[in-house]
Amino acid sequence: MTGRLYGIGVGPGDPELLTLKAYRLLQSARVVAYPAPDDGESFARSIVAEFLPGNATEIPIVIPMRVERFPAASIYDEKAQEISRHLEAGTDVVVLCEGDPFFYGSFMYLFERLADRFDCEIVPGVSSLMAAASALKRPLAARNDVLTVLPAPLDNQKLRERLESCDAIAIIKVGRHFERIRGLIAEAGLMDRAGYLERVSLEKQQVMPLGEVSLESAPYFSMILIYKGAEGWIRDLEIPVETLGVGA
Amino acid sequence: MTGRLYGIGVGPGDPELLTLKAYRLLQSARVVAYPAPDDGESFARSIVAEFLPGNATEIPIVIPMRVERFPAASIYDEKAQEISRHLEAGTDVVVLCEGDPFFYGSFMYLFERLADRFDCEIVPGVSSLMAAASALKRPLAARNDVLTVLPAPLDNQKLRERLESCDAIAIIKVGRHFERIRGLIAEAGLMDRAGYLERVSLEKQQVMPLGEVSLESAPYFSMILIYKGAEGWIRDLEIPVETLGVGA
Repeated sequence: MTGRLYGIGVGPGDPELLTLKAYRLLQSARVVAYPAPDDGESFARSIVAEFLPGNATEIPIVIPMRVERFPAASIYDEKAQEISRHLEAGTDVVVLCEGDPFFYGSFMYLFERLADRFDCEIVPGVSSLMAAASALKRPLAARNDVLTVLPAPLDNQKLRERLESCDAIAIIKVGRHFERIRGLIAEAGLMDRAGYLERVSLEKQQVMPLGEVSLESAPYFSMILIYKGAEGWIRDLEIPVETLGVGA
Repeated sequence: MTGRLYGIGVGPGDPELLTLKAYRLLQSARVVAYPAPDDGESFARSIVAEFLPGNATEIPIVIPMRVERFPAASIYDEKAQEISRHLEAGTDVVVLCEGDPFFYGSFMYLFERLADRFDCEIVPGVSSLMAAASALKRPLAARNDVLTVLPAPLDNQKLRERLESCDAIAIIKVGRHFERIRGLIAEAGLMDRAGYLERVSLEKQQVMPLGEVSLESAPYFSMILIYKGAEGWIRDLEIPVETLGVGA
Protein backbone atom coordinates (compact mmCIF):
# COMPACT_ATOMS: atom_id res chain seq x y z
CA MET A 1 0.00 0.00 0.00
CA THR A 2 1.38 3.36 -1.01
CA GLY A 3 0.64 6.49 1.03
CA ARG A 4 -1.78 9.22 0.08
CA LEU A 5 -0.77 12.71 -0.99
CA TYR A 6 -2.81 15.46 0.65
CA GLY A 7 -2.79 19.03 -0.61
CA ILE A 8 -4.36 21.01 2.21
CA GLY A 9 -5.39 24.65 2.14
CA VAL A 10 -4.33 26.40 5.35
CA GLY A 11 -6.28 29.58 4.62
CA PRO A 12 -5.19 33.22 4.35
CA GLY A 13 -3.14 33.56 7.54
CA ASP A 14 -5.23 33.42 10.72
CA PRO A 15 -4.67 29.90 12.15
CA GLU A 16 -8.33 29.84 13.18
CA LEU A 17 -9.32 29.92 9.51
CA LEU A 18 -7.98 26.39 9.12
CA THR A 19 -10.70 23.81 8.45
CA LEU A 20 -11.46 21.03 10.92
CA LYS A 21 -10.34 18.55 8.26
CA ALA A 22 -6.98 20.22 7.69
CA TYR A 23 -6.55 20.38 11.47
CA ARG A 24 -7.25 16.66 11.86
CA LEU A 25 -4.89 15.69 9.04
CA LEU A 26 -2.13 17.90 10.40
CA GLN A 27 -2.30 16.50 13.88
CA SER A 28 -1.58 12.98 12.68
CA ALA A 29 0.83 13.98 9.92
CA ARG A 30 4.13 12.13 9.76
CA VAL A 31 5.55 13.95 6.72
CA VAL A 32 4.74 17.60 6.02
CA ALA A 33 5.94 19.56 2.98
CA TYR A 34 5.49 23.31 2.40
CA PRO A 35 6.70 26.12 0.15
CA ALA A 36 9.43 28.27 1.66
CA PRO A 37 11.43 31.30 0.54
CA ASP A 38 15.20 31.04 0.24
CA ASP A 39 15.47 33.65 2.94
CA GLY A 40 13.18 33.54 5.96
CA GLU A 41 10.27 31.58 7.28
CA SER A 42 7.65 29.61 5.33
CA PHE A 43 4.35 31.51 5.46
CA ALA A 44 2.27 28.33 5.07
CA ARG A 45 4.15 26.61 7.88
CA SER A 46 3.90 29.64 10.16
CA ILE A 47 0.09 29.55 9.88
CA VAL A 48 -0.13 26.03 11.30
CA ALA A 49 3.02 25.93 13.41
CA GLU A 50 1.08 25.46 16.66
CA PHE A 51 -0.73 22.41 15.25
CA LEU A 52 2.25 20.51 13.85
CA PRO A 53 3.29 17.34 15.66
CA GLY A 54 6.80 17.74 16.98
CA ASN A 55 8.09 14.54 15.43
CA ALA A 56 6.93 15.07 11.81
CA THR A 57 9.48 14.91 9.03
CA GLU A 58 9.47 18.31 7.32
CA ILE A 59 10.21 18.93 3.65
CA PRO A 60 10.62 22.64 2.83
CA ILE A 61 10.24 23.33 -0.87
CA VAL A 62 12.55 26.26 -1.33
CA ILE A 63 11.72 28.31 -4.40
CA PRO A 64 13.89 31.41 -4.97
CA MET A 65 11.54 34.41 -4.74
CA ARG A 66 12.14 36.01 -8.10
CA VAL A 67 8.95 37.75 -8.99
CA GLU A 68 6.87 36.36 -11.88
CA ARG A 69 9.35 33.74 -12.95
CA PHE A 70 7.93 30.34 -13.64
CA PRO A 71 8.72 28.25 -10.56
CA ALA A 72 11.85 26.29 -11.19
CA ALA A 73 10.80 22.96 -12.67
CA SER A 74 13.89 21.18 -11.44
CA ILE A 75 13.14 22.03 -7.81
CA TYR A 76 9.65 20.56 -8.11
CA ASP A 77 11.09 17.50 -9.86
CA GLU A 78 13.48 16.93 -7.00
CA LYS A 79 10.92 17.54 -4.26
CA ALA A 80 8.33 15.35 -5.99
CA GLN A 81 10.90 12.59 -5.93
CA GLU A 82 11.62 13.09 -2.25
CA ILE A 83 7.88 13.02 -1.49
CA SER A 84 7.34 9.96 -3.67
CA ARG A 85 9.85 8.00 -1.62
CA HIS A 86 7.67 8.52 1.48
CA LEU A 87 4.50 7.64 -0.45
CA GLU A 88 6.11 4.49 -1.84
CA ALA A 89 7.05 3.49 1.69
CA GLY A 90 3.36 3.69 2.63
CA THR A 91 3.47 7.01 4.50
CA ASP A 92 0.94 9.76 3.80
CA VAL A 93 2.39 13.16 2.94
CA VAL A 94 0.62 16.42 3.76
CA VAL A 95 1.51 19.44 1.62
CA LEU A 96 0.60 22.82 3.14
CA CYS A 97 -0.81 25.41 0.76
CA GLU A 98 -1.49 29.06 1.53
CA GLY A 99 -5.18 29.85 0.96
CA ASP A 100 -6.67 27.18 -1.27
CA PRO A 101 -4.45 24.62 -3.03
CA PHE A 102 -6.03 25.01 -6.48
CA PHE A 103 -6.61 28.76 -6.59
CA TYR A 104 -3.43 29.98 -8.32
CA GLY A 105 -1.44 27.83 -5.90
CA SER A 106 1.95 26.22 -6.30
CA PHE A 107 0.66 22.84 -5.05
CA MET A 108 -0.42 22.15 -8.61
CA TYR A 109 3.20 21.65 -9.62
CA LEU A 110 3.54 18.75 -7.18
CA PHE A 111 0.10 17.44 -8.14
CA GLU A 112 1.16 17.49 -11.79
CA ARG A 113 4.17 15.34 -10.98
CA LEU A 114 2.59 12.88 -8.52
CA ALA A 115 -1.15 12.50 -9.07
CA ASP A 116 -0.85 9.93 -11.84
CA ARG A 117 1.11 7.56 -9.63
CA PHE A 118 -0.32 8.13 -6.16
CA ASP A 119 -3.70 8.51 -4.53
CA CYS A 120 -4.21 12.24 -4.04
CA GLU A 121 -6.76 14.26 -2.11
CA ILE A 122 -7.17 18.03 -2.12
CA VAL A 123 -8.61 19.66 0.99
CA PRO A 124 -9.95 23.07 -0.02
CA GLY A 125 -9.19 26.06 2.15
CA VAL A 126 -10.45 29.56 2.80
CA SER A 127 -9.12 31.66 -0.04
CA SER A 128 -7.59 35.09 0.48
CA LEU A 129 -10.23 36.28 -2.01
CA MET A 130 -13.07 35.51 0.39
CA ALA A 131 -11.06 36.62 3.43
CA ALA A 132 -10.41 39.95 1.70
CA ALA A 133 -14.11 40.60 1.13
CA SER A 134 -14.78 39.76 4.79
CA ALA A 135 -12.08 42.19 5.94
CA LEU A 136 -13.35 44.90 3.60
CA LYS A 137 -16.89 44.27 4.90
CA ARG A 138 -18.19 44.37 1.36
CA PRO A 139 -19.62 41.47 -0.68
CA LEU A 140 -17.39 40.19 -3.49
CA ALA A 141 -20.30 39.76 -5.86
CA ALA A 142 -24.11 39.59 -5.72
CA ARG A 143 -27.00 38.15 -7.74
CA ASN A 144 -25.92 37.89 -11.40
CA ASP A 145 -22.71 39.91 -11.21
CA VAL A 146 -19.77 38.72 -13.30
CA LEU A 147 -16.80 38.38 -10.96
CA THR A 148 -13.33 38.32 -12.47
CA VAL A 149 -9.98 37.55 -10.89
CA LEU A 150 -7.17 39.43 -12.62
CA PRO A 151 -3.48 38.74 -11.96
CA ALA A 152 -1.71 42.11 -11.85
CA PRO A 153 1.18 41.04 -14.13
CA LEU A 154 -1.20 41.05 -17.16
CA ASP A 155 -0.59 43.79 -19.71
CA ASN A 156 -2.42 47.12 -19.62
CA GLN A 157 -4.65 46.38 -22.58
CA LYS A 158 -6.05 43.20 -21.02
CA LEU A 159 -6.51 44.84 -17.65
CA ARG A 160 -8.31 47.84 -19.20
CA GLU A 161 -10.76 45.60 -21.04
CA ARG A 162 -11.66 43.74 -17.86
CA LEU A 163 -11.96 46.82 -15.71
CA GLU A 164 -14.42 48.06 -18.30
CA SER A 165 -16.55 44.97 -18.65
CA CYS A 166 -16.83 43.23 -15.28
CA ASP A 167 -19.14 43.93 -12.37
CA ALA A 168 -16.79 42.82 -9.63
CA ILE A 169 -13.03 42.53 -9.87
CA ALA A 170 -10.32 41.09 -7.65
CA ILE A 171 -6.78 41.99 -8.64
CA ILE A 172 -4.26 39.55 -7.18
CA LYS A 173 -0.44 39.38 -7.13
CA VAL A 174 -0.34 43.17 -6.95
CA GLY A 175 3.18 43.53 -5.50
CA ARG A 176 5.54 45.55 -7.68
CA HIS A 177 2.70 46.28 -10.16
CA PHE A 178 0.94 48.49 -7.64
CA GLU A 179 1.57 51.90 -9.20
CA ARG A 180 0.67 50.75 -12.71
CA ILE A 181 -2.53 49.05 -11.49
CA ARG A 182 -3.58 52.08 -9.49
CA GLY A 183 -3.06 54.23 -12.58
CA LEU A 184 -5.30 51.98 -14.66
CA ILE A 185 -8.01 52.00 -12.01
CA ALA A 186 -7.89 55.80 -11.81
CA GLU A 187 -8.06 56.04 -15.60
CA ALA A 188 -11.18 53.82 -15.53
CA GLY A 189 -12.81 56.13 -12.98
CA LEU A 190 -13.02 53.40 -10.36
CA MET A 191 -10.85 54.78 -7.55
CA ASP A 192 -13.76 55.40 -5.19
CA ARG A 193 -14.94 51.81 -5.60
CA ALA A 194 -11.58 50.16 -4.98
CA GLY A 195 -10.39 48.73 -1.69
CA TYR A 196 -6.78 47.78 -0.97
CA LEU A 197 -5.84 44.93 1.37
CA GLU A 198 -2.63 43.33 2.54
CA ARG A 199 -1.82 40.57 5.04
CA VAL A 200 -5.51 39.71 5.25
CA SER A 201 -6.60 38.05 8.51
CA LEU A 202 -3.15 38.50 10.06
CA GLU A 203 -2.30 40.79 12.92
CA LYS A 204 -0.71 43.32 10.59
CA GLN A 205 -3.71 43.35 8.26
CA GLN A 206 -4.12 46.58 6.30
CA VAL A 207 -7.42 47.61 4.77
CA MET A 208 -8.07 50.96 3.16
CA PRO A 209 -9.55 52.82 0.22
CA LEU A 210 -7.12 52.50 -2.70
CA GLY A 211 -6.93 56.29 -2.94
CA GLU A 212 -5.40 56.50 0.53
CA VAL A 213 -2.56 54.05 0.03
CA SER A 214 0.81 55.77 0.02
CA LEU A 215 2.98 53.03 -1.44
CA GLU A 216 4.87 52.64 -4.64
CA SER A 217 4.87 48.90 -4.43
CA ALA A 218 2.96 46.48 -2.24
CA PRO A 219 3.60 43.05 -0.74
CA TYR A 220 3.10 40.12 -3.13
CA PHE A 221 0.10 38.93 -1.11
CA SER A 222 -1.84 42.15 -1.48
CA MET A 223 -5.13 42.48 -3.29
CA ILE A 224 -7.44 45.12 -4.72
CA LEU A 225 -11.21 44.56 -4.78
CA ILE A 226 -13.49 46.65 -6.98
CA TYR A 227 -17.27 46.55 -7.04
CA LYS A 228 -19.31 48.19 -9.79
CA GLY A 229 -22.17 45.71 -10.13
CA ALA A 230 -25.91 46.13 -9.88
CA GLU A 231 -26.26 46.49 -6.12
CA GLY A 232 -25.88 50.21 -5.56
CA TRP A 233 -25.62 49.87 -1.79
CA ILE A 234 -22.50 47.71 -2.15
CA ARG A 235 -20.84 50.31 -4.40
CA ASP A 236 -21.65 52.98 -1.87
CA LEU A 237 -20.31 51.16 1.20
CA GLU A 238 -17.64 53.13 2.89
CA ILE A 239 -14.31 51.30 2.82
CA PRO A 240 -12.85 51.22 6.33
CA VAL A 241 -9.31 52.32 7.15
CA GLU A 242 -7.81 49.68 9.41
CA THR A 243 -4.25 48.83 10.17
CA LEU A 244 -4.87 46.23 12.83
CA GLY A 245 -7.97 44.71 11.53
CA VAL A 246 -8.68 41.19 12.69
CA GLY A 247 -11.94 41.24 14.72
CA ALA A 248 -11.58 41.36 18.49
CA MET B 1 -23.35 47.01 25.25
CA THR B 2 -25.08 45.69 22.17
CA GLY B 3 -24.27 42.21 20.83
CA ARG B 4 -22.17 41.48 17.78
CA LEU B 5 -23.56 40.14 14.50
CA TYR B 6 -21.49 37.31 13.03
CA GLY B 7 -21.92 36.13 9.43
CA ILE B 8 -20.11 32.81 9.34
CA GLY B 9 -19.35 30.72 6.28
CA VAL B 10 -20.07 27.06 6.96
CA GLY B 11 -18.47 25.81 3.76
CA PRO B 12 -19.81 23.76 0.86
CA GLY B 13 -21.43 20.90 2.77
CA ASP B 14 -18.95 18.59 4.50
CA PRO B 15 -19.07 19.57 8.20
CA GLU B 16 -15.31 19.02 8.39
CA LEU B 17 -14.82 21.94 6.01
CA LEU B 18 -15.97 24.31 8.73
CA THR B 19 -13.19 26.58 10.03
CA LEU B 20 -11.93 26.36 13.60
CA LYS B 21 -13.23 29.90 14.13
CA ALA B 22 -16.75 29.12 12.91
CA TYR B 23 -16.68 26.01 15.09
CA ARG B 24 -15.70 28.00 18.17
CA LEU B 25 -18.35 30.67 17.58
CA LEU B 26 -21.05 28.07 17.00
CA GLN B 27 -20.33 26.17 20.15
CA SER B 28 -20.97 29.21 22.32
CA ALA B 29 -23.79 30.63 20.21
CA ARG B 30 -26.95 31.65 22.00
CA VAL B 31 -28.87 32.87 18.93
CA VAL B 32 -28.40 31.26 15.52
CA ALA B 33 -30.12 32.39 12.32
CA TYR B 34 -29.98 30.62 8.93
CA PRO B 35 -31.67 30.61 5.53
CA ALA B 36 -34.28 27.93 5.07
CA PRO B 37 -36.59 26.86 2.26
CA ASP B 38 -40.36 27.02 2.77
CA ASP B 39 -40.45 23.27 2.37
CA GLY B 40 -37.81 21.07 3.98
CA GLU B 41 -34.61 21.42 5.93
CA SER B 42 -32.14 24.33 5.98
CA PHE B 43 -28.99 23.29 4.13
CA ALA B 44 -26.77 25.67 6.13
CA ARG B 45 -28.16 24.35 9.41
CA SER B 46 -27.80 20.73 8.33
CA ILE B 47 -24.06 21.26 7.75
CA VAL B 48 -23.41 22.28 11.35
CA ALA B 49 -26.27 20.47 13.10
CA GLU B 50 -23.89 18.32 15.15
CA PHE B 51 -22.07 21.39 16.50
CA LEU B 52 -25.09 23.47 17.56
CA PRO B 53 -25.67 23.88 21.29
CA GLY B 54 -29.00 22.34 22.23
CA ASN B 55 -30.28 25.43 23.98
CA ALA B 56 -29.64 28.05 21.27
CA THR B 57 -32.53 30.19 20.06
CA GLU B 58 -32.95 29.49 16.34
CA ILE B 59 -34.20 31.97 13.75
CA PRO B 60 -34.96 30.34 10.40
CA ILE B 61 -35.10 32.88 7.58
CA VAL B 62 -37.63 31.31 5.28
CA ILE B 63 -37.35 32.56 1.72
CA PRO B 64 -39.76 31.00 -0.79
CA MET B 65 -37.62 29.13 -3.35
CA ARG B 66 -38.75 30.76 -6.56
CA VAL B 67 -35.80 30.63 -8.86
CA GLU B 68 -34.06 33.89 -9.74
CA ARG B 69 -36.49 36.19 -7.99
CA PHE B 70 -34.95 38.88 -5.88
CA PRO B 71 -35.19 37.66 -2.29
CA ALA B 72 -38.24 39.15 -0.70
CA ALA B 73 -37.19 42.42 0.91
CA SER B 74 -39.98 42.33 3.46
CA ILE B 75 -38.80 38.98 4.85
CA TYR B 76 -35.30 40.34 5.39
CA ASP B 77 -36.76 43.50 6.96
CA GLU B 78 -38.70 41.42 9.42
CA LYS B 79 -35.85 39.03 10.24
CA ALA B 80 -33.38 41.91 10.61
CA GLN B 81 -35.74 43.38 13.17
CA GLU B 82 -36.00 40.09 15.06
CA ILE B 83 -32.19 39.79 15.07
CA SER B 84 -31.75 43.41 16.13
CA ARG B 85 -33.84 42.79 19.22
CA HIS B 86 -31.30 40.17 20.37
CA LEU B 87 -28.37 42.45 19.52
CA GLU B 88 -29.93 45.36 21.40
CA ALA B 89 -30.34 43.10 24.42
CA GLY B 90 -26.59 42.48 24.33
CA THR B 91 -26.66 38.97 22.85
CA ASP B 92 -24.43 38.03 19.92
CA VAL B 93 -26.19 36.54 16.89
CA VAL B 94 -24.54 34.04 14.56
CA VAL B 95 -25.89 33.84 11.01
CA LEU B 96 -25.01 30.66 9.14
CA CYS B 97 -24.09 31.07 5.47
CA GLU B 98 -23.56 28.28 2.96
CA GLY B 99 -20.04 28.47 1.50
CA ASP B 100 -18.69 31.96 2.08
CA PRO B 101 -20.95 34.79 3.37
CA PHE B 102 -19.87 37.37 0.80
CA PHE B 103 -19.54 35.22 -2.33
CA TYR B 104 -23.01 35.63 -3.91
CA GLY B 105 -24.51 34.88 -0.50
CA SER B 106 -27.82 35.97 0.98
CA PHE B 107 -26.16 37.12 4.22
CA MET B 108 -25.49 40.44 2.50
CA TYR B 109 -29.19 41.29 2.78
CA LEU B 110 -29.01 41.11 6.57
CA PHE B 111 -25.66 42.88 6.60
CA GLU B 112 -27.19 45.68 4.51
CA ARG B 113 -29.92 46.14 7.11
CA LEU B 114 -27.88 45.79 10.31
CA ALA B 115 -24.21 46.70 9.79
CA ASP B 116 -24.72 50.44 10.21
CA ARG B 117 -26.22 49.97 13.65
CA PHE B 118 -24.37 47.00 15.09
CA ASP B 119 -20.84 45.69 15.33
CA CYS B 120 -20.51 43.08 12.59
CA GLU B 121 -17.87 40.47 11.82
CA ILE B 122 -17.70 38.24 8.76
CA VAL B 123 -15.97 34.88 9.13
CA PRO B 124 -15.00 33.69 5.64
CA GLY B 125 -15.67 30.10 4.68
CA VAL B 126 -14.55 27.54 2.14
CA SER B 127 -16.39 28.45 -1.04
CA SER B 128 -18.05 25.85 -3.24
CA LEU B 129 -15.86 27.25 -6.00
CA MET B 130 -12.68 26.00 -4.35
CA ALA B 131 -14.34 22.80 -3.16
CA ALA B 132 -15.43 22.10 -6.73
CA ALA B 133 -11.89 22.40 -8.07
CA SER B 134 -10.69 20.06 -5.31
CA ALA B 135 -13.36 17.50 -6.19
CA LEU B 136 -12.58 17.78 -9.90
CA LYS B 137 -8.89 17.38 -9.09
CA ARG B 138 -8.06 20.21 -11.44
CA PRO B 139 -6.73 23.67 -10.57
CA LEU B 140 -9.22 26.51 -10.94
CA ALA B 141 -6.62 28.84 -12.39
CA ALA B 142 -2.83 29.09 -12.66
CA ARG B 143 -0.15 31.73 -13.11
CA ASN B 144 -1.67 34.73 -14.95
CA ASP B 145 -4.96 33.13 -16.03
CA VAL B 146 -8.05 35.32 -15.95
CA LEU B 147 -10.67 33.48 -13.88
CA THR B 148 -14.30 34.50 -14.29
CA VAL B 149 -17.34 33.49 -12.29
CA LEU B 150 -20.48 33.53 -14.44
CA PRO B 151 -23.99 33.20 -13.03
CA ALA B 152 -25.95 30.94 -15.40
CA PRO B 153 -29.04 33.22 -15.54
CA LEU B 154 -27.08 35.75 -17.65
CA ASP B 155 -28.19 36.07 -21.28
CA ASN B 156 -26.58 34.09 -24.10
CA GLN B 157 -24.72 37.03 -25.57
CA LYS B 158 -22.93 37.83 -22.30
CA LEU B 159 -22.13 34.19 -21.66
CA ARG B 160 -20.76 33.71 -25.20
CA GLU B 161 -18.42 36.68 -24.84
CA ARG B 162 -17.01 35.36 -21.58
CA LEU B 163 -16.61 31.79 -22.77
CA GLU B 164 -14.61 33.27 -25.62
CA SER B 165 -12.34 35.57 -23.66
CA CYS B 166 -11.53 33.97 -20.31
CA ASP B 167 -8.90 31.40 -19.42
CA ALA B 168 -10.79 29.73 -16.61
CA ILE B 169 -14.53 29.86 -16.03
CA ALA B 170 -16.81 28.79 -13.21
CA ILE B 171 -20.52 28.81 -14.04
CA ILE B 172 -22.66 28.96 -10.92
CA LYS B 173 -26.42 28.78 -10.26
CA VAL B 174 -26.74 26.32 -13.13
CA GLY B 175 -30.07 24.75 -12.11
CA ARG B 176 -32.78 25.10 -14.72
CA HIS B 177 -30.36 26.79 -17.13
CA PHE B 178 -28.43 23.56 -17.58
CA GLU B 179 -29.49 22.68 -21.15
CA ARG B 180 -28.96 26.23 -22.45
CA ILE B 181 -25.56 26.50 -20.79
CA ARG B 182 -24.44 23.14 -22.12
CA GLY B 183 -25.51 24.26 -25.60
CA LEU B 184 -23.40 27.42 -25.36
CA ILE B 185 -20.38 25.48 -24.15
CA ALA B 186 -20.73 23.00 -27.03
CA GLU B 187 -21.06 25.89 -29.49
CA ALA B 188 -17.83 27.37 -28.11
CA GLY B 189 -16.03 24.05 -28.63
CA LEU B 190 -15.30 23.65 -24.93
CA MET B 191 -17.16 20.44 -24.07
CA ASP B 192 -14.02 18.40 -23.51
CA ARG B 193 -12.66 20.98 -21.07
CA ALA B 194 -15.80 21.26 -18.95
CA GLY B 195 -16.46 19.44 -15.70
CA TYR B 196 -19.88 19.21 -14.08
CA LEU B 197 -20.33 19.03 -10.29
CA GLU B 198 -23.22 18.88 -7.90
CA ARG B 199 -23.52 18.53 -4.10
CA VAL B 200 -19.80 19.12 -3.79
CA SER B 201 -18.17 17.62 -0.67
CA LEU B 202 -21.42 15.89 0.35
CA GLU B 203 -22.03 12.18 0.36
CA LYS B 204 -24.08 12.39 -2.83
CA GLN B 205 -21.42 14.42 -4.63
CA GLN B 206 -21.48 14.01 -8.42
CA VAL B 207 -18.48 14.83 -10.58
CA MET B 208 -18.26 14.11 -14.29
CA PRO B 209 -17.30 15.41 -17.70
CA LEU B 210 -20.07 17.74 -18.88
CA GLY B 211 -20.54 15.60 -21.98
CA GLU B 212 -21.61 12.64 -19.88
CA VAL B 213 -24.33 14.35 -17.86
CA SER B 214 -27.77 13.07 -18.79
CA LEU B 215 -29.92 15.78 -17.20
CA GLU B 216 -32.19 18.44 -18.57
CA SER B 217 -31.93 20.52 -15.46
CA ALA B 218 -29.60 20.37 -12.50
CA PRO B 219 -29.81 21.24 -8.81
CA TYR B 220 -29.45 24.94 -8.00
CA PHE B 221 -26.14 24.27 -6.24
CA SER B 222 -24.46 22.73 -9.26
CA MET B 223 -21.46 24.17 -11.03
CA ILE B 224 -19.54 23.85 -14.28
CA LEU B 225 -15.78 24.49 -14.36
CA ILE B 226 -13.96 25.10 -17.62
CA TYR B 227 -10.21 25.45 -18.07
CA LYS B 228 -8.68 26.79 -21.27
CA GLY B 229 -5.73 28.73 -19.90
CA ALA B 230 -2.02 28.51 -20.57
CA GLU B 231 -1.21 25.35 -18.62
CA GLY B 232 -1.73 22.63 -21.20
CA TRP B 233 -1.47 19.84 -18.66
CA ILE B 234 -4.48 21.22 -16.76
CA ARG B 235 -6.57 21.35 -19.93
CA ASP B 236 -5.63 17.76 -20.65
CA LEU B 237 -6.43 16.35 -17.20
CA GLU B 238 -8.98 13.63 -17.42
CA ILE B 239 -12.16 14.57 -15.55
CA PRO B 240 -13.12 11.74 -13.20
CA VAL B 241 -16.57 10.19 -13.12
CA GLU B 242 -17.59 9.90 -9.49
CA THR B 243 -20.95 9.59 -7.85
CA LEU B 244 -19.78 9.14 -4.30
CA GLY B 245 -16.78 11.26 -4.28
CA VAL B 246 -15.73 12.52 -0.89
CA GLY B 247 -12.28 11.07 -0.15
CA ALA B 248 -12.19 8.04 2.11
